This record gives sequence, structure tokens and C-alpha cells, in this order.
Amino acid sequence: MAGIDKDKYLRLFRKELLGNVIPFWLKHSLDSENGGYFNCLGRDGEVYDTTKHMWLQGRQVWMFSKLYNTLEKRPEWRDAAMLGYDFIRRCGRGAEGRVYFSVDREGKPLTIQRKPFAECFYSLALLEFSRLTGDRSIRAEAESVFRQVQAWNADPAALGRPILAGQRPASALAEPMITLALADDFASDSDLKDWLPVIHESIRGIRRHMQPEEHLVYENVAPDGSLLPGSEGRLLNPGHAIETGWFLIEVGRRLRDSQVVADGVTMIDWMFEKGWDSAHGGLFYFLDAGGFSPTQLEWPMKLWWPHCEAIYAFLAAWRETSDNRHAQNFERLVDYTFARFPDRGHGEWFGYLDREGRPTHMFKGGPYKGCFHVPRFLWLAVKALEQM
Amino acid sequence: MAGIDKDKYLRLFRKELLGNVIPFWLKHSLDSENGGYFNCLGRDGEVYDTTKHMWLQGRQVWMFSKLYNTLEKRPEWRDAAMLGYDFIRRCGRGAEGRVYFSVDREGKPLTIQRKPFAECFYSLALLEFSRLTGDRSIRAEAESVFRQVQAWNADPAALGRPILAGQRPASALAEPMITLALADDFASDSDLKDWLPVIHESIRGIRRHMQPEEHLVYENVAPDGSLLPGSEGRLLNPGHAIETGWFLIEVGRRLRDSQVVADGVTMIDWMFEKGWDSAHGGLFYFLDAGGFSPTQLEWPMKLWWPHCEAIYAFLAAWRETSDNRHAQNFERLVDYTFARFPDRGHGEWFGYLDREGRPTHMFKGGPYKGCFHVPRFLWLAVKALEQM
Repeated sequence: MAGIDKDKYLRLFRKELLGNVIPFWLKHSLDSENGGYFNCLGRDGEVYDTTKHMWLQGRQVWMFSKLYNTLEKRPEWRDAAMLGYDFIRRCGRGAEGRVYFSVDREGKPLTIQRKPFAECFYSLALLEFSRLTGDRSIRAEAESVFRQVQAWNADPAALGRPILAGQRPASALAEPMITLALADDFASDSDLKDWLPVIHESIRGIRRHMQPEEHLVYENVAPDGSLLPGSEGRLLNPGHAIETGWFLIEVGRRLRDSQVVADGVTMIDWMFEKGWDSAHGGLFYFLDAGGFSPTQLEWPMKLWWPHCEAIYAFLAAWRETSDNRHAQNFERLVDYTFARFPDRGHGEWFGYLDREGRPTHMFKGGPYKGCFHVPRFLWLAVKALEQM
Repeated sequence: MAGIDKDKYLRLFRKELLGNVIPFWLKHSLDSENGGYFNCLGRDGEVYDTTKHMWLQGRQVWMFSKLYNTLEKRPEWRDAAMLGYDFIRRCGRGAEGRVYFSVDREGKPLTIQRKPFAECFYSLALLEFSRLTGDRSIRAEAESVFRQVQAWNADPAALGRPILAGQRPASALAEPMITLALADDFASDSDLKDWLPVIHESIRGIRRHMQPEEHLVYENVAPDGSLLPGSEGRLLNPGHAIETGWFLIEVGRRLRDSQVVADGVTMIDWMFEKGWDSAHGGLFYFLDAGGFSPTQLEWPMKLWWPHCEAIYAFLAAWRETSDNRHAQNFERLVDYTFARFPDRGHGEWFGYLDREGRPTHMFKGGPYKGCFHVPRFLWLAVKALEQM
């Protein structure tokens, strides 16, 4: 049968989101004593490290606010969002407006990154939480942080990164990608034309990473889109490019720009083709466009988030194209992913599998895995399937 | 038969060093155009990235100088040492005396690390090269860089690392370990008593990482040796502790201090016992003392350098103890290592295997693997076996 069985997947995703994933975080992550969330959670939710990583604090505030705002008005979701929101407002930002990378359980700062990504998730959290409360001052703060990030990105030396003589100016895909995601979220309930300059600039930035001759999306390119030398210049991150692809699809719909939608679909197609491991299934974490081994030690591992992103990406691609190939890749990804990542009887999903698809790490939350990629793609897919 | 067959292993190691490993670097790494060494070399020696990593430039200068100074007066070894020495003197150091982490093929700086490890390998390189030329001014420069590193280590804020309110003071094993190695090398041909304060302070620092109740060496502890919380506090790096163990054995011999030798043997015994993978063989890269998954994605991989270090460590332990257990562990490690890491027909060794012992990365040199751990342990073992 052609296409995607909408009812079947709506049931599957809704049950996974509301029956497995969200209950795990509600039960184990809330720090009612100090506020915020424990995000280093072992297989059964035990706290193995009380460090709180700000990317994940912000993302969890966003997730619970989003569920409350768009799915159901459950008080426990609102309370969970508020617990994290109060914590990050109290402890998240330090000198010069920087958002910390990590703080201790009480909120005392531990580490700070050179690049301003924590600030992006902080801004996203405030934006969505402002929709929960209706408090415009929170939204204004979210926007002010976002504007600050754009200023820092325009002037990398501002954050104290040493500029050395041999360095070549480079564009990392993450930067236009997260800028686009933020701008699109702000635009979703305000005047679109205020956000068009930054949206269009981000789309141009993303397109510079596409190499049509090779059917590849490069992770790092020169500012004019030409290729950079060495391992860094040849680096491919299929999950990241596929995630960017569905961002473009969503933005293209808002702009009613079919070329932007088409470019998103193209990125997804190219990088699924390149990134899929034909020997063992699953998406590689990193590849080298020249066929060398990536220097990253984890390159052949199968991580949860590229698979989450790719499932939603092919659902969105199929919605736009009705192309049966997209439906088939969607089902292939769902089959691979649901057979390996969910940890039945313990809750939530494993994050890290070896190349053959066996879990290498038993924790459910760590410094980079929290209440975000799994529930976000499930929520996105539920909303999309409901609307189809 | 009890003990180690000295002739057999002397032949094996000498042949591997002089017939496989050193020829690979001589043939493929020398950059006769710009000076220095290409250290990102693919399976057959092809240069897949022209970035030059200063840890590895310094280590390779050290290695070729050491071979020339202690094994044979081969002009090609002297010339190779000089090629790297001239390059690092010309391009290695920048503002405030920092040694770069990486430079481009011509020597223009690319990156710099916050922690002063590149400086340590720069100092080691100059020290050994000064023995090749007899030039005391080079040795004085090596000593000046080492003194600067000690000053920076005593005042971490000096290198611009932000000090945040929640951070706990911690000792990373790497710091006293590399300080001890450097001080011992300076002491080897000068007045020992000039170096005793820093040697004894380093030994005290290393001993604070030992936990006799648990038979473990922790990678990070509080300055008083008490345990730190969380994943970082429970981190074990068996290869690193075993390497530190043979450093202690060598220093203990120089000091004629049998307790220092015994502590070195103990560290090796404990961490081999803890680090050996009973299911698949080989030493894990990282472990968590509490039995959780380490958060490092590469924790179950088998890396070349812990195995190199452990082979020499058990040879040195056996030399000190005549304990047949040490001879058995030595042979077990040699068998595991020589069956998997050398890449016959292509030259040199693989650096990275998966948990089951299969190569995951085909390159012979990368940002952290160069002409160092393989030839160093082979050279150490040859010298030790010759003297037994």
C-alpha cells in the first residue's frame, strides 16, 4: 500500500510521547528542592550526576511549555515548565549576559562555552514560556537574548575566541540553522515581515552548505560557500543536515516559498542517501566527504537524535511531495529506530548505539541528551499527522 | 615456562620499531618544503589533512632525537629531528609564550588550547634535541618553557580560564604526571637534587589519585585527594593510570626509592585488573568507578596507546618484581595488541578499534596520534630488554 498509514503512526507516536517519554522526565528529572531539572539520569531515572546542563534546562522548559500550549492544558506540564523557567532565570546568566553551559544543582556556575548556543536554547525557552503565561516582558527578554546572539555571531572575536593568522573564515551549519529556527519561532505569532531579513539571511547561509554536484551538505564551508581544506572542510553530519532540511520545509511553508521547501526536501534526500549505513542500518554520526575516516572517534555510532530528526523529516517531506519514496524511508527509519532505541520496562530511549545497533551507554539523560529530541519529534509528528 | 623470553621480545620489538614504524614516518611525514611533519596520514601514508598538531610535532622531534641519541647515529634520524625542531622553533610559539595546538602546513597558527600541554611536548622536544646538538642554549630554552608551565599550573586563572563560583578545585592526573616525566628527563643528565622538589611534589600529587580501599586510580580528585562528585569525579582512564605507573617505576629507580617503585607497580596492577575487558579483551578507554556508563562516547573503544603503555608497564613491573603474574599480563597484552593494531602491508598501526577489536578508523596519524606512543614503547622496551 502506498503512503503512510496516518492513524497507525499517530497512535504509535502519541502513545510513546505520553505513555513512555514524558512520564519518565516528569517522574525523575524535577528538582523540587533547588528548582530546574536533573538531566543526568541513569537507565531507570537515577540521578548519577547533579550537574545541570543549560542547553537541556532550556530545551526542557521549551518542551513542557510547548506541550501545555499546543497539546493539552495539563497542570503538571505547566508546573514542570515553571520549575525550569524559574531556575534558568535565577541562575542561567552571568557576566556580560552569557548563559552558562552548566551549573551545579543549586545553580552555581560551573562552565561556560565559547560559542553562544546555550543562549539560543535559553531564548527559545523564554519565548515558549511567555506564550504559556502571556507575559510580554518574558518574550521581550527572549528577543533581547536572540539579538545579542546575532551580534556575537557577527563578531566572533567578541566572545574572546583568539583570532589566529592561519584561520580561514568559516561558516558552521549550526549557526544559520539555529538562527533560522529561532527567527521562525518568533515569526510564528508576530509580524512576519519583521523577521524576514534574518530568515532570508539564514536561508542563504544554509544554502551555501549545499553542493549540488556531489549531492552533499557540508558541515563547514567558507563564507562564500566554497569548500574548506582538510578533515574539517570535508566533514558531513547527516543528522544535522537532515534536521536543517525539515527546518527549511517548515519555514518554506510559512513563507509560501516552494523553492525553500524543495531545498529542504533535497537536503533530506541527499544526506539520508549518504548517511545510511547499508551494512548495519541506521545513520552514521559523522562522515568524511573524501572517503577518509572522520577523526571523530564516535563517527560510526548510531545516535538517537539523527534518527528522531530523520523520522520527522521524511514525514514532512512526504506531506509536501506525496512521493512514495519518502513514505518508504519514513517507515524504514521508524522500524530501525523503534526496534533499538526505546528501552521497554525502564522508560525513555537509549541515546547511543554502536555501529551494529547495540546500546553502548545505558543512561537516558546526559550532558547532551535530555528531554528534547525524542519528545520534540514525537510532538511534531503528532501535530503534523493530526493536521494531515 | 616462567618469566619473559627476552630474546624473543627484543627481536619482535626491534623489528617492529625499525622495520615497520619508523620507516613509515620517515617516508610519509617529512614536509621538506615547509619543514615540520605531516601528522594526519591515511592508511598508506597519504596526507589527508595538512594541519600540523603541535603535540605531535614536539613528540616526533623528541622521538627522532631519542633514537639518534640512544640507539644509532643514523643521519636520517638526525635530519628528521632537525626538520621538526627548526619548524617548531620558527612557528610553534605565539603571544605570551603560548605554544599553539595546531598550525597550518606553512606554520601559521590555527588553534590554541586553554591548558598548557603543547608547551610540555615543546619543552621535551627541545631538551632531547639539545642532547643531539650539545647546544646548551636549547636546553636552557626547554627549561624556561617548563618553568613557565609550572607557573601556569600553579595559577590556572593566568591562562584566561574563567573561574566560576560552583567549580571545585580539582587535580587532573595529567598534570603531576607530565610534570614528573619532564622533571625526570631534566634530572637524567643534571644534578638530581635541583629537581627533587618538583619530583617529590609530583609524586605526592600522583599518590593523591590512588584509592587503596577500592584499588583504583581516579583521573580527577580534590586537591587533598578526596573524591569529587559526579561523572568527572568517578572517571577512570586505565591507560593513563598505567602509563603513570611506569613513570613512577622509572623515577623510583632514579631516586632509589623502593616505595615509589612499589606504588607504580600497584597502580599498574589495579588499573589493568579494572580496565581489562573480560568479554572481548583489551583495555577500555574510560570507565566510571560507580558502574555507570561514562558519558564519553568512546569509552568502550580500544585505543592503541593504552596498550602500548601497558606492555611497557608490565615489562618494567616484571623487571622490578620478577613476579610471574606480570610476565603473564605482559604476554597477554602483547598477544592482544600485535594481533590487532599493526596494519601489515600498509605500515604503522591502527589507532582505534571498536570494543570487539576491529579497526574503526583507518588513518595512521591524526590530531592525537603521531610518531610517539608506538615507537616510544618499542624503544623503551628494546632499551630495557637490552639492559636486563
